[in-house]
Amino acid sequence: MRKSVSADAAGKDEQIFAEAVRIFGEKGYHATSMQNIADAVGLQKGSLYHYISSKEELLFKIFERSTGALTKELEAIIASDDSPKRKLHRAIEAHLTALCERLDVYTVYLSERRVLSGRTHARVRAEGERHARLLEKIIQQGIASKDFRALDSKMTAHAILGMCNWLYQWYSPTGRLTPHEIAEIFSDLVVGGLERRRK
Amino acid sequence: MRKSVSADAAGKDEQIFAEAVRIFGEKGYHATSMQNIADAVGLQKGSLYHYISSKEELLFKIFERSTGALTKELEAIIASDDSPKRKLHRAIEAHLTALCERLDVYTVYLSERRVLSGRTHARVRAEGERHARLLEKIIQQGIASKDFRALDSKMTAHAILGMCNWLYQWYSPTGRLTPHEIAEIFSDLVVGGLERRRK
Repeated sequence: MRKSVSADAAGKDEQIFAEAVRIFGEKGYHATSMQNIADAVGLQKGSLYHYISSKEELLFKIFERSTGALTKELEAIIASDDSPKRKLHRAIEAHLTALCERLDVYTVYLSERRVLSGRTHARVRAEGERHARLLEKIIQQGIASKDFRALDSKMTAHAILGMCNWLYQWYSPTGRLTPHEIAEIFSDLVVGGLERRRK
Repeated sequence: MRKSVSADAAGKDEQIFAEAVRIFGEKGYHATSMQNIADAVGLQKGSLYHYISSKEELLFKIFERSTGALTKELEAIIASDDSPKRKLHRAIEAHLTALCERLDVYTVYLSERRVLSGRTHARVRAEGERHARLLEKIIQQGIASKDFRALDSKMTAHAILGMCNWLYQWYSPTGRLTPHEIAEIFSDLVVGGLERRRK
């Protein structure tokens, strides 16, 4: 019996998460109430608090889901034996694939993360900086191996993060190019910009 | 007398605009009420409606102020006799300078523009696309003159727009680099990525 109860609870958690993403995406975080989410999943507001302590906790879960898997993937890319150029290409592709596959979740995360408060905000900020540092590390590896020019690695990492994250503002799944094709173009631009020139 | 009255009105308009930017930036657009803005400028809520018809109109004014001057500047850059490389450099510098000088206004514009509705949303969207097309045009000029490789000009424009706009998420006026220095690095990266290689 116990197993079935917790399977139900997990199902409800997942349903609350999915509805929160949908409603935050439609109405914005501020305009969404716990009542809206309770209504969408067919719970009394009091029962909703059995699953989730606050709207902010929901937003934080959305953030964790957005960034956790991608960060692990970037760490694996950095630890691999690939060349710096190949690593940067893979990092851009991993970022764009994650973002486009869960565009709804990333949209809420990227547009609403500034509203998180205190400790939660600090964790979200730290995770954003961690992502930037992982890209920076690939660029530094490339500078050390003389594959890349010695451009400012921190600013270059911010540039790459910006061009990738900005997709949430314009990307459409029915658009002309796939995430893979967009990653090819972005990577070509950035790797081309970092490569050392033959004189 | 008339002149002095309209000068006062203009002063009040400006004060309402400045307070709206500040409060939207602090609390977010949704959480801000017309009452909050009325309180900040020392008006009754009813009197505030003499100056501004809605919260949405204020957000739209913020948007217009953010983009109008920059669009004109980009048009002048495109029409100039500069080389495509120089034009792209100037476009990036103009964008970053505008953004960093009015970081408060741009932050509200870039983080809240998705909440605008109907006709206003369409105008904001059209202006964003116009900015992308101006960058695209510079890239196409560079491809035509064989200064640039034939990378996808639309995607490259989105990449540049993203890396520049993303500054509102991380730029600090007290940071290590000036907007001018950041523009140098971004421009070096992008122009380097677009340049045709000597074989």
